[in-house]
Amino acid sequence: MTGFDLIIRNGTVVTASDTMRCDVGIREGKIVALADKLEGGEREIDATGLLVLPGGIDSHVHLAQPTSDGSVMADDFESGTRSAACGGNTTVIAFSLQERGASLLDSVAEHHQRAADKCHIDYALHAIITDPTQQALEHDLPKVVQEGVSSIKIFMTYEDMALNDGEIFRVMEAARREGALTMVHAENFDAIQQMTERLEKAGQTGPRGHADSRPIVVEREATHRAISFAELVDVPLFVVHVSGGDVIEQIEWAKRRGLPIYAETCPQYLTLTADDLDNANMEGSKYVCSPPPRDEANQKACWDALARDVFSTFTSDHCPFIYESETGKQKAGADTSFKYVPNGIPGVETRLPILFSKGVSEGRISLNQFVALSATNHAKVYGMYPRKGTIAIGSDADIALWDPEKRVTLSQSMLNHNCDYTPYEGMELIGYPVTVISNGEIVADQGRPTGGPGKGRFIARGPSSLIPTTR
Amino acid sequence: MTGFDLIIRNGTVVTASDTMRCDVGIREGKIVALADKLEGGEREIDATGLLVLPGGIDSHVHLAQPTSDGSVMADDFESGTRSAACGGNTTVIAFSLQERGASLLDSVAEHHQRAADKCHIDYALHAIITDPTQQALEHDLPKVVQEGVSSIKIFMTYEDMALNDGEIFRVMEAARREGALTMVHAENFDAIQQMTERLEKAGQTGPRGHADSRPIVVEREATHRAISFAELVDVPLFVVHVSGGDVIEQIEWAKRRGLPIYAETCPQYLTLTADDLDNANMEGSKYVCSPPPRDEANQKACWDALARDVFSTFTSDHCPFIYESETGKQKAGADTSFKYVPNGIPGVETRLPILFSKGVSEGRISLNQFVALSATNHAKVYGMYPRKGTIAIGSDADIALWDPEKRVTLSQSMLNHNCDYTPYEGMELIGYPVTVISNGEIVADQGRPTGGPGKGRFIARGPSSLIPTTR
Amino acid sequence: MTGFDLIIRNGTVVTASDTMRCDVGIREGKIVALADKLEGGEREIDATGLLVLPGGIDSHVHLAQPTSDGSVMADDFESGTRSAACGGNTTVIAFSLQERGASLLDSVAEHHQRAADKCHIDYALHAIITDPTQQALEHDLPKVVQEGVSSIKIFMTYEDMALNDGEIFRVMEAARREGALTMVHAENFDAIQQMTERLEKAGQTGPRGHADSRPIVVEREATHRAISFAELVDVPLFVVHVSGGDVIEQIEWAKRRGLPIYAETCPQYLTLTADDLDNANMEGSKYVCSPPPRDEANQKACWDALARDVFSTFTSDHCPFIYESETGKQKAGADTSFKYVPNGIPGVETRLPILFSKGVSEGRISLNQFVALSATNHAKVYGMYPRKGTIAIGSDADIALWDPEKRVTLSQSMLNHNCDYTPYEGMELIGYPVTVISNGEIVADQGRPTGGPGKGRFIARGPSSLIPTTR
Amino acid sequence: MTGFDLIIRNGTVVTASDTMRCDVGIREGKIVALADKLEGGEREIDATGLLVLPGGIDSHVHLAQPTSDGSVMADDFESGTRSAACGGNTTVIAFSLQERGASLLDSVAEHHQRAADKCHIDYALHAIITDPTQQALEHDLPKVVQEGVSSIKIFMTYEDMALNDGEIFRVMEAARREGALTMVHAENFDAIQQMTERLEKAGQTGPRGHADSRPIVVEREATHRAISFAELVDVPLFVVHVSGGDVIEQIEWAKRRGLPIYAETCPQYLTLTADDLDNANMEGSKYVCSPPPRDEANQKACWDALARDVFSTFTSDHCPFIYESETGKQKAGADTSFKYVPNGIPGVETRLPILFSKGVSEGRISLNQFVALSATNHAKVYGMYPRKGTIAIGSDADIALWDPEKRVTLSQSMLNHNCDYTPYEGMELIGYPVTVISNGEIVADQGRPTGGPGKGRFIARGPSSLIPTTR
Repeated sequence: MTGFDLIIRNGTVVTASDTMRCDVGIREGKIVALADKLEGGEREIDATGLLVLPGGIDSHVHLAQPTSDGSVMADDFESGTRSAACGGNTTVIAFSLQERGASLLDSVAEHHQRAADKCHIDYALHAIITDPTQQALEHDLPKVVQEGVSSIKIFMTYEDMALNDGEIFRVMEAARREGALTMVHAENFDAIQQMTERLEKAGQTGPRGHADSRPIVVEREATHRAISFAELVDVPLFVVHVSGGDVIEQIEWAKRRGLPIYAETCPQYLTLTADDLDNANMEGSKYVCSPPPRDEANQKACWDALARDVFSTFTSDHCPFIYESETGKQKAGADTSFKYVPNGIPGVETRLPILFSKGVSEGRISLNQFVALSATNHAKVYGMYPRKGTIAIGSDADIALWDPEKRVTLSQSMLNHNCDYTPYEGMELIGYPVTVISNGEIVADQGRPTGGPGKGRFIARGPSSLIPTTR
Repeated sequence: MTGFDLIIRNGTVVTASDTMRCDVGIREGKIVALADKLEGGEREIDATGLLVLPGGIDSHVHLAQPTSDGSVMADDFESGTRSAACGGNTTVIAFSLQERGASLLDSVAEHHQRAADKCHIDYALHAIITDPTQQALEHDLPKVVQEGVSSIKIFMTYEDMALNDGEIFRVMEAARREGALTMVHAENFDAIQQMTERLEKAGQTGPRGHADSRPIVVEREATHRAISFAELVDVPLFVVHVSGGDVIEQIEWAKRRGLPIYAETCPQYLTLTADDLDNANMEGSKYVCSPPPRDEANQKACWDALARDVFSTFTSDHCPFIYESETGKQKAGADTSFKYVPNGIPGVETRLPILFSKGVSEGRISLNQFVALSATNHAKVYGMYPRKGTIAIGSDADIALWDPEKRVTLSQSMLNHNCDYTPYEGMELIGYPVTVISNGEIVADQGRPTGGPGKGRFIARGPSSLIPTTR
Repeated sequence: MTGFDLIIRNGTVVTASDTMRCDVGIREGKIVALADKLEGGEREIDATGLLVLPGGIDSHVHLAQPTSDGSVMADDFESGTRSAACGGNTTVIAFSLQERGASLLDSVAEHHQRAADKCHIDYALHAIITDPTQQALEHDLPKVVQEGVSSIKIFMTYEDMALNDGEIFRVMEAARREGALTMVHAENFDAIQQMTERLEKAGQTGPRGHADSRPIVVEREATHRAISFAELVDVPLFVVHVSGGDVIEQIEWAKRRGLPIYAETCPQYLTLTADDLDNANMEGSKYVCSPPPRDEANQKACWDALARDVFSTFTSDHCPFIYESETGKQKAGADTSFKYVPNGIPGVETRLPILFSKGVSEGRISLNQFVALSATNHAKVYGMYPRKGTIAIGSDADIALWDPEKRVTLSQSMLNHNCDYTPYEGMELIGYPVTVISNGEIVADQGRPTGGPGKGRFIARGPSSLIPTTR
Repeated sequence: MTGFDLIIRNGTVVTASDTMRCDVGIREGKIVALADKLEGGEREIDATGLLVLPGGIDSHVHLAQPTSDGSVMADDFESGTRSAACGGNTTVIAFSLQERGASLLDSVAEHHQRAADKCHIDYALHAIITDPTQQALEHDLPKVVQEGVSSIKIFMTYEDMALNDGEIFRVMEAARREGALTMVHAENFDAIQQMTERLEKAGQTGPRGHADSRPIVVEREATHRAISFAELVDVPLFVVHVSGGDVIEQIEWAKRRGLPIYAETCPQYLTLTADDLDNANMEGSKYVCSPPPRDEANQKACWDALARDVFSTFTSDHCPFIYESETGKQKAGADTSFKYVPNGIPGVETRLPILFSKGVSEGRISLNQFVALSATNHAKVYGMYPRKGTIAIGSDADIALWDPEKRVTLSQSMLNHNCDYTPYEGMELIGYPVTVISNGEIVADQGRPTGGPGKGRFIARGPSSLIPTTR
């Protein structure tokens, strides 16, 4: 058994369940051998002292996405995947937004174009449905799913994006019929609008108002509602970016009732708080995302839920907006009301180092849980398994070598996104990815890109593991 | 201490907390004395062997209410209060419906007119708000509350009645400002519509489809949502006609969190089931009401919740429609789809006998709980206490004498409503009101009216006991 | 209707459900009339501006009780009932302790003797069973119950008092058979012993160790265990002196399952914390009672549970020990280890003023809830209703006149117990009982006794209202 | 990469997280290579169409264990491991019972002797502690743990085995100090005795009485108690053989509170019910085990909990007693009272086929969950990972080849234990192990042993993965 294109030697391979000292043999972009000792590699990497992990999958990133308020998203597929690769990822799933009035099919096609020849690593797409016309659900959706966009996302908030209850119901029925997985951004739009109005009347227009206008109750309510519709339609549901205890309570309540309800959380809910938004000048806008960061009790609730496997995945919800720009809409400029601050923060590059350091290095989760949360479960939940998400014979050679002892202080200067800040500036970490391999080739090394745009391929995804194969 | 207009002798007086053998002295329509022995009554009633209870208050009845689908409500204020009196009641609170596009103030005025000179017993009004315009909330509502209509009801379902989430929020804010109590009919309109469509497509158009189109999940969801808005607005909420365990779970969950959430249930949820709707011909339509009756497990859940004081009140939700009529919309005629069956069943006369017999006589609740659930708590919750709802010095002489041993088989022929059926036909009961006294005068005796229209007065209500006096 | 021994004029009479302005007529120690105006009283009290409440019943007091460790209980039946009367009470239920090895029947007889000719107000007895021999359960218990000691208490902690699980089971079976109510002191004895040993080894021997040795987990565990036995035996259970949220969670969990589980809490769990025990010298021993006071979160949990009617009664657990005495065992002297500090604090006189001020005056509970928690529910739960616990025709004329505006600063100097301190020294209150009437005679006025020992009678109690009348 | 002792070709390798088509290379009893294609095996097995799973670990079996009532356990280490191997297992963890009065150290030594030269597959030992003397806890336990018996089990029921609460507390403290994992059999001994007495008095002495004497309440209570002690001592706890919903509720409640509480369930709680014990003659005794099988609702609760990963492991609790024997104590002979029926049923050989067929084949759990529940988690929980429990480079070559389509009807005649019956007689299964490899050698084939006693080695275990590495 020789003739490998690449051998990774002497590392510690970790999967979602196992940890082993072995060599990894790669041929034609695939993992073809795991063994105590391999010979005959055209090229070799010495991974002594390093962890050999499946490359991260970030199943929740927004790239080159148009926004309803005209703000400019800082990263396109090129810079976004570049940043992702440097942060230990080998696959991203970005969103294809169907704008209201637009064709679902066309919107997916358009996002394919935006991504083509741009990506440093492999990518896939979720379809956001904002206009669930009969055409969209009955004609377009089957094609979209067939072509490998097997998950759809709906919003319960945001102007021109929020679906009403009847639409949610119908989308879930279509998702059930087509075998697509439904993801939901659960916040109550009307309540947020009312709260916003009240705050504005009271003169509370600074960034902190963003958090105050959408307390966890609005997220809990929408989550309960979405769970209820999923129960009525008899379909699995994936609740994205859960921010705290009240919502986790609903998720676990549903699970105990036997409902197929799943969820993710994100770094911002583990490490930031609403107080970060509370800044006299516009600095607070750097932390404006939805749902907003909560408080320390909710951070703990999220950590505890991660530790006891309530969450299936851990994502960045990377949604970068420039803080200060001379042209275009930007965060710092929205100083008349928090409601004009573009919603979202960058995080595709920092997601995994934060989870590794605060989670694994500080003993809150195991290394195997890290792999499950960062890669394997994404692949399973979103229909890319076993091609992606693990280190197994036959899988794509998507691998991140981590130095578990490396000490890093996060700073904007070290990052590779196109955003002009990181909300985690100054955070001290232990553990960082040092070499990232996509399809058998090194795409990032020591935190800098070494691949280039265009090597990343579109991954047509099959059905989610969460969808029952028989009814 | 003599000079009574009426003395009730030798009965057992029961209040929400106490039970005592004593005479009751009445003067000028008020209770003025309770004593071991009273003398000097112009008129006397021997209540030996009888229970002397506060006259029932039915705080949830629909009388002479226009319906959006053109169906004819069987009872007006005359027949409705006549029937109520014969069933042991001395006060009803009916609904004043603001139709969409109409003035809130006008609609209340109109219902005053409908009731004037009609009522056998005292009455009050709740204001249904279906069109929460600025005019309605800021101009009309304060006047309406000031004039004694201190509670408002909103719907989360029904065409032309359901408020959207923003409207619910604004109504609650107005209710908070004006010190009005918010009542909510909690069912998710959109979900019901979708389920209805699905059932119709499947050819399930019979009355049973009514129950299948609105499973308890749609009620639970809306309840959770309403609770969440009340939490955001910081206002008490009263959830009407709770039908089963899933909803009770939400109510108790909210109470344990310290939220001021209250609720009622009704006889149909204790004694009927969805199977009653399941009838090859249109007989099933006789049991069509919303929420629909569930199953035996949910009946038990409601009984258990009554026993442990989860519910503040017990009402009829009297909403009578003719089963067979030659003219006008009626239940039997809606044979093309359950969705055309008028929603609602009669029950103002049978409410208390059913609760007494199944509750007190069969040992599920105490006599004091019966008084609280049938009268006292209604008076407190709806701002009529201490004038109404109890047997106390200074209160209106509204009294029902009950024979706890009287055996009755319920039948349409014995009832005094204008509906042409009772859903409880043939039910065997132990315990029935034998003499009903309103403001010191006998208005019903042995199940037949003895008063007459016009004696009942409008009761201007003050703030609910559920509304905090200080914030 | 004339010829009253006493008329209380112009006060506001409050019962557990009602509030009314009326006069109260008393004859031969009984309440015989409530009316808008009464004439012809031999004696009259002007209660203008005062509340006329049922005299308090304190169903959990320890008087003249021998203790296993030889410490001296500060109050006997004389001083204890004197203090109780001055604090607004007209009945106490004290404990008759069966010491291990002693006869149950004899121990009750002995306590009758201790009380005879001593009491300022009426009294009753609970039987503590520490030695559930066949003689005790099958021969003595039926007699004891028959003679009016219709409730028994068992301990799950304390040397020579704690029953083992088999004994608890057998006592509950006997209680079921005899129709007696079972009360339980729920703390795990073995766990406390182990924790005590551990603390002593660590040199933590000060009074604070008392709280640390019995964290709420030991109370929660024992509560769950007692509930489980009650479930197996199918018998109601009354859990005494609940101290916080974890235990309340168990109680409510049991209630939701339909189990007949009831509970009380006490002033110490509303107003003191474990920090009060944390004192460099022995001052902390003044707050040593079991369960120990917890923290502010648990205080809030108790208040919230009171407000939502989780607790049936509110008692003092009056169990007074001298802080400093020259002879005998005392609190201040137990300076070698907290385990030698006599367990218990005085409170029979301060219980009601604290609940009134912190509860009613500060808006946490209603006046009717105060009456229920302070008097009516005790009478019902312990089989003295309707003779005791309410203001109703035919009931004993046990009445406390309260001035709801009276401002009092609690201090040892104003109290009438025989203890040498109060744990509530310096607490500022609004609302205090000004005149207390027992069986129609004034026994306390302006905080001082006016009756005298010997007027109080033994009240033979019947079955608890919590015990089902039919199985 | 050649020179393998054995190559398993063309199978589908499954781990707790992954599934891959690959060859497995084995050398010197270890797995040394996984690859798309391996060459050069001294011996090869064609696994086309088969699943290549980690050999099962049964971490709860009783072999050659003395019983307090003198009954004879049907299997010793020879027949027990033979039967285990034929059922797809490659490791068992049996119990070393310290009898009351005996030395802990001696009892472990004695069980080593009983196992030596007997085992067909590898084995390990748990230490049952029934006599937690200072010698046992402070002197013996450290040695026992050091020598690889790193888990202890305690009983809360059974004569001469049940620890009292203080003992439980002290054992947990010792386990914490020594880094041993505490397992608990949670049933309340005293309650069972009382219930037994009651049933016997009522003449209900047949096998069904066994189930009636220990309803799930006694298991729930003991579980809550054990959890509480673990909370006080701050130590992980493993609750064995959980039988139904009430206990699962406690486990999940504890997990949500952040407590390190873990649990297992067994085949009898998924497939048998208390009705199986209800047999006019003694046939019911074949199903007598503790806790007893419950009902279908509890079966469903256990399945649902398995599916949502509440249980860490799935074990047999193999505890075989002869039904009919001419000499010695046996099940059929205990016809005077259920309390004399030896407690326990055989199951080491049927455990995995039942879980596979009812779980995987019928779609209740995934194949990866099966691997986790049958092997990997046992290895982690009990300190044998990564040597045991997975298919990974460097792990022992303990492998079971399963034919997922094989149809088998379970019967006593096909089994290899020494018991004279199986409680699963006639059960129809899909999926069965066809070849079982221990340390690289085939020990069972087509359901029959091919190895022989003495090849199995003692596995000295390290600390459980459930024990925090830092405090």
